Parts: sequence; structure tokens; C-alpha cells
Amino acid sequence: MSPEEPLAMDTVFHPKSVAIIGASTANQEAGWVARLQNSGYTGHIYPINPKATEVYGLKAYPTVRDIPGPLDYAIFNIPARLAPQIMEDCVAKGVKVAHVYAAGFSETGKEEAREREAHLGSVAKAGGVRIIGPNCMGIYCPASGLTFDEDFPREAGNVAFVSQSGAEATRFVFLADTVGIRFSKVISYGNAIDLDAPDFLEYLADDADTKIISCYTEGVRNGRRYLEAIRKCLKAKPVVILKAGLTESGAGAAASHTASLAGSQATWDAFFKQTGAIKANTMDDVSDVILALLHMSYPKGRRAAVVGRGGGIGVIAADICERAGLKVPVFHPDTRRQLEKVIPEAGAGVRNPVETTYGIGGAAEFYAKGLDIVDSDPETDFIIIQLAVDVYGGRQSDLPQQVTRAADALCETLPTLTKPVAAAIYTGGHTHTVEAVLGARQKLLKAGIPVFSGVEAASKAISRLIGYRELLERL
Amino acid sequence: MSPEEPLAMDTVFHPKSVAIIGASTANQEAGWVARLQNSGYTGHIYPINPKATEVYGLKAYPTVRDIPGPLDYAIFNIPARLAPQIMEDCVAKGVKVAHVYAAGFSETGKEEAREREAHLGSVAKAGGVRIIGPNCMGIYCPASGLTFDEDFPREAGNVAFVSQSGAEATRFVFLADTVGIRFSKVISYGNAIDLDAPDFLEYLADDADTKIISCYTEGVRNGRRYLEAIRKCLKAKPVVILKAGLTESGAGAAASHTASLAGSQATWDAFFKQTGAIKANTMDDVSDVILALLHMSYPKGRRAAVVGRGGGIGVIAADICERAGLKVPVFHPDTRRQLEKVIPEAGAGVRNPVETTYGIGGAAEFYAKGLDIVDSDPETDFIIIQLAVDVYGGRQSDLPQQVTRAADALCETLPTLTKPVAAAIYTGGHTHTVEAVLGARQKLLKAGIPVFSGVEAASKAISRLIGYRELLERL
Repeated sequence: MSPEEPLAMDTVFHPKSVAIIGASTANQEAGWVARLQNSGYTGHIYPINPKATEVYGLKAYPTVRDIPGPLDYAIFNIPARLAPQIMEDCVAKGVKVAHVYAAGFSETGKEEAREREAHLGSVAKAGGVRIIGPNCMGIYCPASGLTFDEDFPREAGNVAFVSQSGAEATRFVFLADTVGIRFSKVISYGNAIDLDAPDFLEYLADDADTKIISCYTEGVRNGRRYLEAIRKCLKAKPVVILKAGLTESGAGAAASHTASLAGSQATWDAFFKQTGAIKANTMDDVSDVILALLHMSYPKGRRAAVVGRGGGIGVIAADICERAGLKVPVFHPDTRRQLEKVIPEAGAGVRNPVETTYGIGGAAEFYAKGLDIVDSDPETDFIIIQLAVDVYGGRQSDLPQQVTRAADALCETLPTLTKPVAAAIYTGGHTHTVEAVLGARQKLLKAGIPVFSGVEAASKAISRLIGYRELLERL
Repeated sequence: MSPEEPLAMDTVFHPKSVAIIGASTANQEAGWVARLQNSGYTGHIYPINPKATEVYGLKAYPTVRDIPGPLDYAIFNIPARLAPQIMEDCVAKGVKVAHVYAAGFSETGKEEAREREAHLGSVAKAGGVRIIGPNCMGIYCPASGLTFDEDFPREAGNVAFVSQSGAEATRFVFLADTVGIRFSKVISYGNAIDLDAPDFLEYLADDADTKIISCYTEGVRNGRRYLEAIRKCLKAKPVVILKAGLTESGAGAAASHTASLAGSQATWDAFFKQTGAIKANTMDDVSDVILALLHMSYPKGRRAAVVGRGGGIGVIAADICERAGLKVPVFHPDTRRQLEKVIPEAGAGVRNPVETTYGIGGAAEFYAKGLDIVDSDPETDFIIIQLAVDVYGGRQSDLPQQVTRAADALCETLPTLTKPVAAAIYTGGHTHTVEAVLGARQKLLKAGIPVFSGVEAASKAISRLIGYRELLERL
């Protein structure tokens, strides 16, 4: 965004009026007009279609020029070849922001498409219209009702997502929804011929509704500006970045996808070290780190207390924790003595990981009686609850109910604990317990406990959380 | 197993008669007698209980000495302190194999328990009774009906699992069941005061019913013998080993669990390199490698063709593949030209990863029309099908049915392909498609296609498969 032409970025997220250019009369329920209407957008919606009088119950206009009042925002839902001409209409109308949803520009790698994109850009620039895109999903802002998928949650949250990929933007909202993550703003910016990642990042750095920023980035046009924007964000809030295309194979794929120069692994390693941005490798990673940021206080150190089934699965869990950069040390002798009284059958299972005995019922009992002992152990900094449901015998009929009972017991005890707690509740072999496990996760999330798909996801997220804190302290 | 005293190991897996010592009259449905009765064991079952006349419909005897005929196998379902005395009865009766299910021996770390274990071992040794355990689940052998969980599949397969942990043995059978892996023999050997991992491994090396051997190992008593046993196995069939306790935290946990000396990371690295055994870090890894071994021919090289949604998720997939030791190269120009005819909208999505267009319906269509083009590409060695269901728009009502249709299209095309194929079918954000995804996985597994939980699991398993082949060729 050039400084001499400041954009009220609020128009990007809170336009007072939106035109859907290319509002189709076919399959209206699946169109952009229905999408905005049904997502609680309360501004004016103007369907633009020269052949229609009405779309999804709203009066249609031949062009944006025919709209009676002023127009803030236009969504280009038309073939790419028509875009420059439509942009001329938008300039004439005084449109502030154009979201060019249409694909068929430079991402195709074709010369004529590249020229078309350049033409579109120059018309808009000359006429003072700011562009989101082309080739992107645009904006999801629950507070204003702007959205690109009618099924997105209408509830707003405090996480922002800035995505170079439209499909990842859509997928991530749904993925995050399963663990209760809600968004302030999601931006899919595509080819970014005008508004680019740094524009959105600079805005989000100051945005009071945004507490955590996440990014999917393939390539960066102006490295210096991107770096400065991320630095500005990090002064105010954590930033999690999935930098895709860090391997040779990935860089090749990124070149095909968004024509991005992916940049070298070394450059990006330095970037993460210099800025303190949290690095993620998959969108699951991004979701897990956000969960930890949302629900956990910062552990004082890297020493985990693992409370699980013990035995082989406990040994594997300890290995997983250490591979993620954590430690699973032996509890203090006092802790062990106290634990022995609560779980006399555990034998060596009082050392860490804790082996809760007597089946899954024993786990629930331990959550009630033994967690406070673990909480007060001086040798560990945080607690990972590992409830591997399929370790509990066969397909016993009441296992689903037992899972629910265990989750209830956890929810009751957790408010009394002082250390950060994460839960890994999962089932691999027992498909009949899947529903109960999903229910238990929701229950814990509502109680403010981050829940992960397993010890691996939990330990990686916690390690990143600690690493972020450590780096910030050094920077 | 000492060579001067050869055991017909067949008795371990196919005993003609089994006594349950400590067959309880309380909760009989959950007891060992019911377990064997209901799992198709066809030999004689003798409940032993001095206070009962009948258990689960079978005549009970006060001691094994009172059983009329000969007795092959005895399960010690009694408190540890009674074990040595019961073993004297077994010696008197001429029992061949005793499975000491009871815990409360050296694994507790207590001196009296250690002495008890030594006493038990010496009585058995003097009397010629071989011991499985103590502190273990014993044997699951579908062909004979011997089992330690009534809910285990009764169908036999060709995978063996040799586990130092009883809980992992149970959990793994259920985990493997979800992807259709069936077992020839599963052995939980616990403290192994007599029969130890090498005894079972040597037997399995020659076992015609076993094609793949998997192991969960925390520590090894006689390293040389273990190494030789694994070598013997590897001459005949692949071996997958989860060596738990390789990190400091894990080694500490292993010391608590089975009193095992875990051994150094360097020693085990050398072990894997020298033997060609396949290394796994979690039981999910073990399951994934077995799936690849069961259903894939060996790829000629490490070059993956990825057929998925393209876009950001394709870039991430390419990164994941390369991090697992694979490559995702650009297709041959001829391949790209042919693909462009099938998916004209894909633009750059014909390079690799392939971007199947037009939503999930487009994926199904591409499986029918485009997979043979990918199959004949000279630049790639195998195909990964990536069907990330949650990348397809919102919660469209027919998405579950579309998943099923896509799986059907895949099943139809796959028999015509020449390259090894793996499928990654998953959903993260769309809980309403979980059932359809699980159904699609089963369909593909039945068609002989290995199905993984995601590209990460698929690429790691394939990389291990190739690594195993490469190492074998060099050894």
C-alpha cells in the first residue's frame, strides 16, 4: 500500500455495500449473493447481471454504474477476460475495493493472462481502486458478515489468518472449527497485484480484535517489507507461519501454484530466528500452536509430566516428547512417595510417565485424586494428560461412557491446578469410541484445556510455545 | 531356548489343552475361560479353582494335578506370591508351557518380588516347564484360537508381532484391525525369564504362516543373540522394529516399565544399518509400514507422483514428501501435454502434484480419465493419491456420497495401473464426512490399496519400504 494513498483498510473488512458482479441466476443458493445474505452481512448487496432483474430475491443491476447509491466493495465473479472492462466500470462508480475472485491471470503461466493481469492492475491503480487478488477467495470477517463460505462460523474470534492459498484458507477455517478456534479476519490474497501480505499484516498488527496472527506463505515479493511487517506484528502478538515450498519439491510445486519464488531454506531459517515467528510445517501444526497459545500459560521450562497409561505407550510418549525438544524427568522423591499412596499398584509407574492403574476407570479416579500431586512436583513444568482410549482392553461396551466420565473428572480437577496442562485424547483402533473421544475433546476445549490428536501433536505445539517465549526473551 | 532342550514351539501356539489356574466364578464372561471358549479354541479347557465345581459351563478342578488327561499349557491367573507353588503342581503334571500372566515380579523393582521371580524360574527349569512371562498377555494365535482378548479378530493373517509390552500388544491388534492387518501370531513376553524375544523370532523366521515380523522392543538381554535372530528373520522376510527408549526420557521410562537397559542411540542406529530391519518410532509407523509391505510392490525409485487437490495443499504435500526422503519431480513434457487435455482448467497443476479440478467430482473424474497418464510418466516411480476431503468447499450435503463415489472410481481404475499406488484419504475439518472417509478407506483396502491417514504417513511408510529394499540390496 503506497503511503501517499492511504486506504481505510476498514473498507476491506467492513464495507457498507457490496456488488456481486456476475451474480448468476442459475443455482442461486450456491452463489455469492446467497452467501452474503445468509452469513449475516447487513450492508447493501447489489447483484450485477445485465440479463437478470433479480437474484436471490434482490434487485439486479446491469452494471455497477447503475447502482443508485455509493459502492464500497465489488466482487468480480466473472471470466478473467472481462475483468479489465469491469474494472473501468468500478473506477467510474468510485468503488474503493475490488475483490477479484476470478482466476485465469499470471498463475496460469501464460503470456496473454499475464498481460491481462497487468492491464487490470493499471486500470485500477489509475482509478484509485484497491485490489484483493486476483485468483483468491477474498475476505472472511465474521464481525461484518463478509465471507467466502456460507458454512463458516458466524461467531468471531481473535485469530487472523493471512493466506496465499485460497483452498488452504477455506480448509483451515473448517479445521480450526473442530477445536473451537474462531477468527477475527481471514484473508486469501492470491496473486496480490495490489494489496499484498505486508499490507494485511501491518493492519493486523494494530487490530485490537486480533490476538494471534497465522500465515500461509509460499513466496514473498518484497522480502524487506514482509520482514518488517512480521516484526511489527511480533511486537504486539504471536505470529505462526507455514512457509510452504521450503524443500526442492515444495518449491517446484509453489512455482506452479502461485508463481512464487520460494526462497532458500537458509534464508527462511534465518528469518524465523531473527524475528521470533513460530514455524509450522502443516496446517495441523498451525492449528495446534494456536490452541496452545490460546489456552496455555507459558511453561517455565521444558520438563513434562506425562499422565497416561504407562507401560509401553508411556515409553513411546517419553521418546516422542524428547524428539520434540522436551524432557520427561523422574519426579521428585516426595512426589513419588505421595503418588504411591494413590496408585499402590503402579509399581514403577510413579516415576514419570505416571501409570494410572485399573483401566480407564482408574484414569478418571487418578484425575480426581492424583493430579494435584503431579501439579506440585518441583521437577516438572507442565502436564500432558495422555488418554489413549484404545489401550483399554477390547471393545468393552461401556468404553464410550467411560471416556466421557474421564473427561468429566478432568474438567472438575483442572481448575485447581497451577501448571499449564495439555490433553492428548485419541483412539486408533476403537472406531466405536470415536464419537465419545470427539465429545470429550469438545468438553475439555470448552473448559479451556487445549486438546491434541496425540502426544506428538501436543509435545510439538508445547515445544513451539516455549521456543517462541525463549526467543522473544532473547530478542 | 537352550539347544540341548528343544521345545516343540508349536505347543506355545497350538496347545492341545489349556488350564486356567485361578478361573474365577465372579464375572465369568470377562474371564480367561470365556475368552478361550468364545475365540474358537477347540482343545480342552480346564478351569482350575479349588472352591468351584464349574466355571463358564466347564467342570473345574482343584489343581492341575486333578485334571484327568495330559496338559500342554497353563495360564497363571493368580497372585504372584502363589506362582512358585503353582509351578510345582505344573511340574508334577508334566505341563509343557506356562504362561505366567500374573504381574508382581522383577518389574516392580522390589527385592522380594525379584526373589520370587528367580524361585519361579528355577522350579520351572528344574521341572522342564517352559515359561512365557511373567507379567505379560501371552499368546494370540487365531489359527488355534489362543487369545488374550475375546474381541480380537478370529481371522488369521500373515503378520507376527513380538511385543515386550502387553498393553502395546493389545492396542496394536485393534489398531491394525482398522486397516485390515491380520496376524499369524502375536506374542507378549513380558519379563521373559525363560522364553525371550530371540526364541520367538527364530521360530517366526521359519514359520510359513508368517510373512512379515513386527516387534516392540524396550531392551535386549543378550544383544548378540537378538542380533542373530533378527538377521535370521531378515534372510526370509521383512522385520519392522519399534525400539522404544532411544531418547534419555524414553530410556528412563523403559527402565521403570520393564527394567530394561535401553541401549544407546548409536548402538541401535548401527543395528538398523547392519541388519536392514525397518525402524519405526510409533505403533502407527509400524502399522503403516506393514500396510505398504502388504499391498505395494517395491517402487523403482524415490520419485513420487502426487495426485491431489493441488494448490497450497499440494505444495505442503511436496514438502512433506521430500522431508520423508522422497522427491516430487516435474512430469515429463509428454505427460504434461496429455494431462492438459484431461484437465484443461488446471493450468500449472499438470506439473506434479496434479491438481484435479472441479471439486471432488473432478477428482473422481480424473481417477477414471487421468491416472493412466500419470502411471505412464517416465519421471516418477510411484503414485500417491491425496484425497483431502475437507479441501472441498463447505459442508455441502452430498460430500459424504461424493467421497464414496471417488473411492469407487479409484477402485475401478487401480487394477489397470502398473506403478505402486498408495492412497491418503482423510478429513480434518469436516466431522460429518468421517464415516464416509472410513468407509472409503475400507473399500480401497479391500481392493488391495494401502490407505494412510495423510500424505505424511504415506510418504514415511513408502520411504521406509524403499529404504528397506535399498539396504537389502547392499547387504
